[in-house]
Amino acid sequence: MKSFLVIGLGRFGQHLALKLMDLGNEVMAVDKEEDRVTRIAHLVTASQIGDCQDEEVLKALGVKNYDACFVCVSADFQCSLEVTCALKELGAQYVVARADRDKQAKFLKSIGADEVIHTEMDMAHRIAVRFSAKGAFEYIELTPEYAIFEIATPKSWIGQSVAEVGVRREYNINVIGIKKGSDITPLTKAGYVFSESEHLIIAGSQKDALKLMRIR
Amino acid sequence: MKSFLVIGLGRFGQHLALKLMDLGNEVMAVDKEEDRVTRIAHLVTASQIGDCQDEEVLKALGVKNYDACFVCVSADFQCSLEVTCALKELGAQYVVARADRDKQAKFLKSIGADEVIHTEMDMAHRIAVRFSAKGAFEYIELTPEYAIFEIATPKSWIGQSVAEVGVRREYNINVIGIKKGSDITPLTKAGYVFSESEHLIIAGSQKDALKLMRIR
Repeated sequence: MKSFLVIGLGRFGQHLALKLMDLGNEVMAVDKEEDRVTRIAHLVTASQIGDCQDEEVLKALGVKNYDACFVCVSADFQCSLEVTCALKELGAQYVVARADRDKQAKFLKSIGADEVIHTEMDMAHRIAVRFSAKGAFEYIELTPEYAIFEIATPKSWIGQSVAEVGVRREYNINVIGIKKGSDITPLTKAGYVFSESEHLIIAGSQKDALKLMRIR
Repeated sequence: MKSFLVIGLGRFGQHLALKLMDLGNEVMAVDKEEDRVTRIAHLVTASQIGDCQDEEVLKALGVKNYDACFVCVSADFQCSLEVTCALKELGAQYVVARADRDKQAKFLKSIGADEVIHTEMDMAHRIAVRFSAKGAFEYIELTPEYAIFEIATPKSWIGQSVAEVGVRREYNINVIGIKKGSDITPLTKAGYVFSESEHLIIAGSQKDALKLMRIR
C-alpha cells in the first residue's frame, strides 16, 4: 500500500483518486470547491476542502509523507505552477503535474516537477500508432523507438513455424509471447507453429513493427 | 500507408493528425476555424476549412474512402454526436469519437461510433496503476485484468535463477523478456540468473503483478 495526495478533483483528478483507491492505496483528495470534495469524500481515505495555492493549507497536509503528490489543476495554469513549486519546497518526495501543452510541461519541469503528464498528447500518440498498424490491438512504448505490440497473427504466417517464417531474420522482430483469450505464454520454441486463433505479443522498433503489420 | 480523416483540430486532433503523418499515413484535417487549419495545413496531406455539422461538407469529403474517421470535437458534445452519426450514415468504415465522460461515451456508441476514446479516464487509470506498482515503468493492459509490466528486477531475485525464484509457482507471473537498455530478449531458460542492471517484462493479472512489485 502506498499513500498519495491528489490536488484538484476535476475529471482527471477524480478518476485518478478513485483508481488509486481501487488498487489498494491510501488517497488524500483536496479541492477548493466543496461540491467536488463532497462527491468523492466517501470513496477516498480522507478528503479536504482547501485552496492549495495557500501554502498554509499545503503545510497542514504534511506533504512529505506521501509517496507521490499529483497536481491535477490544469485548467488554471498559474495555480498548477504555484502548487507544484510549493510542494517541492515543502519537501514532497515526488511531484507529478499535468500539462496540456509543451510549454506548460517545460515550465512545470523547470520549477521542479519530477514528472509531467501530457494527457492529450500521450493519448493522441498511442491512438495514432495503434491505427497506423493494421491489426495492432495495444502497444506499449518502452523507449521512443522501441515498443511491445499485441497483433493478430499475420495471415501469411498461419500454419508456419517460427523458424520457417524467420521472424527475427526477415522482420527484425521478436515474438515474445502468444496470447490466447486472456492467457499469455512466452514463445520459446523455434518449432512453434502460428495459428489463426491467437494474438502475438511482439517487440521491436515502431518502424519494423509497422512494416510487419502492413505485410499480411 | 493508410488514410485518415481528422475532424476537429484542437490539441488532441492536432497531435493525432501530426503523429499519424509522422507514421507515414495520409491525413485529411478539417476544422471550421480558419486559424486552426492554417496552423497545420503545411504539415498534413490535405486540409479544409469547413463545418462538419453541415452534411454537405461531410459528403464532399468522401468519408467512405478513409480507413478511419476521428471525431475530435469534444468541447461541443452535440456537434460530436451529430458528426459521428452523419459519418456512419454516409458509410464511413470506422468512426472513432472522443468522450470526456461515461455518459458521452454511451451516447456516442449508441448512435454508431465504432470506438470511443475516453482520454482523461484512460490516462488516469494508466497513471494510477503505474504509481501503485513500486518500480513499474510502463504497463500495457491486455484485458481489464491482465497486463504486461516493465519492472525493475525485485531486489530479492538478484543473483538467483528463474527456477530458484520459482517465478510462476510462487508469484503466478510470467517473465516474458529481459530489457537491457533498449534491447528486449525473450526469457527462455529456467537457468537464467537475474541481475540488477536490467528490467523485466512480466505478464500477469494486475493483482499478482502489484503484489510482486510490493515484495522487494
